[in-house]
Amino acid sequence: MSPDDHRYMARALTLARRGLYGTDPNPRVGCVLVDNGAIVGEGWHERAGEAHAEVIALEAAGDRARGATAYVTLEPCCHHGRTAPCTDALLHAGIGRMVAAMPDPNPQVAGKGLKQLRDAGVVVDCGLLEAEARALNPGFIQRMTQGRPFVRVKLAMSLDGRTALASGESRWLTGEAARQDVQRLRARASAILTGIGTLLADDPNLNVRLPEVERQPLRVILDTTLRTPPTAQTLRLPGSVLIFTAVADAALHAPLRATGAEIVVTPRAGQGLNLRAVMAELTRRECNEIHVECGPTLAGALLQAGLLDELVVYMAPVLLGDKARGLFQLPELARMSERTALEVVETRAVGKDWRLTLRLR
Amino acid sequence: MSPDDHRYMARALTLARRGLYGTDPNPRVGCVLVDNGAIVGEGWHERAGEAHAEVIALEAAGDRARGATAYVTLEPCCHHGRTAPCTDALLHAGIGRMVAAMPDPNPQVAGKGLKQLRDAGVVVDCGLLEAEARALNPGFIQRMTQGRPFVRVKLAMSLDGRTALASGESRWLTGEAARQDVQRLRARASAILTGIGTLLADDPNLNVRLPEVERQPLRVILDTTLRTPPTAQTLRLPGSVLIFTAVADAALHAPLRATGAEIVVTPRAGQGLNLRAVMAELTRRECNEIHVECGPTLAGALLQAGLLDELVVYMAPVLLGDKARGLFQLPELARMSERTALEVVETRAVGKDWRLTLRLR
Repeated sequence: MSPDDHRYMARALTLARRGLYGTDPNPRVGCVLVDNGAIVGEGWHERAGEAHAEVIALEAAGDRARGATAYVTLEPCCHHGRTAPCTDALLHAGIGRMVAAMPDPNPQVAGKGLKQLRDAGVVVDCGLLEAEARALNPGFIQRMTQGRPFVRVKLAMSLDGRTALASGESRWLTGEAARQDVQRLRARASAILTGIGTLLADDPNLNVRLPEVERQPLRVILDTTLRTPPTAQTLRLPGSVLIFTAVADAALHAPLRATGAEIVVTPRAGQGLNLRAVMAELTRRECNEIHVECGPTLAGALLQAGLLDELVVYMAPVLLGDKARGLFQLPELARMSERTALEVVETRAVGKDWRLTLRLR
Repeated sequence: MSPDDHRYMARALTLARRGLYGTDPNPRVGCVLVDNGAIVGEGWHERAGEAHAEVIALEAAGDRARGATAYVTLEPCCHHGRTAPCTDALLHAGIGRMVAAMPDPNPQVAGKGLKQLRDAGVVVDCGLLEAEARALNPGFIQRMTQGRPFVRVKLAMSLDGRTALASGESRWLTGEAARQDVQRLRARASAILTGIGTLLADDPNLNVRLPEVERQPLRVILDTTLRTPPTAQTLRLPGSVLIFTAVADAALHAPLRATGAEIVVTPRAGQGLNLRAVMAELTRRECNEIHVECGPTLAGALLQAGLLDELVVYMAPVLLGDKARGLFQLPELARMSERTALEVVETRAVGKDWRLTLRLR
């Protein structure tokens, strides 16, 4: 791969990022067409059901696509989904070379699109800036390869690891810049999920309030004993609400159904719901990234169930003391070696607060 | 001030930093002598009782000091201490200009050294890179201006703000790089202070184990009811140990005195000792920076007494859960507005851990 190859793929990644808030449940994809050292067309996937990145780039290039190199952040599709296969369009346009950042993560189709192009005489390379391409679509990739969504838990804490006062008061621990940043995390998610404890304590909206964003993620409430009040703020807002509960009696569902919410009866596990069953249902609904805002009970339960993939912690430089509420409710550890190890993947200042992004190791 | 002035003062600051581990109880000071655009002599204060930075620089310059500009990170002394006044030496050498980063913080002498030079015909400027010069000597400055040492509390915690398991186990929460970094914090302190809880739980050495460092800080134990075992590790090491206690009975002191430790009887305050009285005694002993390694009880007590100046937190990217021990024992807050606000002055990676340095606002 040449420096030019890197440069054009980097451009395709930049284009793909423009779809961050909109392509769901599809992946974010960008495409650049280059002929004789000049970009002759580019595009990105904007919204599910609309044209794929490759098709937009081909339309922009017109006849100049003939013999060109296509840089795509994800292997082009070769099947009929909501739109026609991109491989057909690329072959029809007569591209000479394909550079893909990564193969389609779906194991049932992985590589077939590239093979189809290669069989038709196109020079095919794959794997350029693959890590960057994977970082664009952690949820889509995990859903395709592991059959479950990518779960990102957002927490706000004091320096001494406390999320709220003993009384439950948590507003406003972090500053306005951190709260705006959380809006961007919400906007990229397929669903925004919370537990009944947080719902009752904070009555959150759980929506996206960014002027540039149209799509509202699904709102999900985990409510084992169905205590959600029909007057909850989040039930009054436009968009879909899903309530998972262990209460099977449909008569008890009626007041919540009347608000437009959908109720999903789910088996119990311990004190709460079977979180694997919850994630299976969200996978069935094509959810890629789940954004969780919750208290220590649900955070601890997700961690223990092995369902927490990424932790985003906003740390306010304040001390609340040991009487205030903790971050993760977990069983007592007998040995330091039993601790949960994480990897810090990013730290940055957000206003007066600090944001730490961590992955499970 | 010219760019050259900044450059030479920056050099003087660099030299001063070489005294970081050694000058105690004196301040760290650097000096550069410049004549006709060339450095003709430089020096830094290395050890109390030995030559001051100015004298070393003048000796290096010899006759070339005549008419030169002296850049000093702290106003030169004009009184007889352990050594003769630097102002006399500077005047005798015939310097033409003095640029000081900051005045002597002792309000009883502040400016007198500069005035003496000015009265003798030397061109005097003061205040160049003052913030950097102040950062060299937070303890010396605070002791001179407020009559108390600068207290730096070092804590190691998990991401969720826990310092130890419920059982008390805290080794090894952070990694080797963090522990080496703590050695450098210890080495710059006048005294290393801990509470009886930490002493009994961890039996720490409380010494400096850096090959390049000779000076061992005073080791201080706060032990209200005199529970320190005479077999404690820290009592067996070379150097001075001071035990503050509320137990006045000299017969009970004898076993600890036999190890060479000094006992200071101190009034009580609440459950522990009067921390202001402790700091007053350490001020009397010319302690500039106090390095504290302690548990949540003493950390909380120092914070509440208004005696915590800087917090250095080593954060290990692990989760210990809500059963593990907290960072600061503090009274329950009724309102979020009662929280203690800090300012993050630095964050950096130290091995796999993160170091946050915070100041009280």
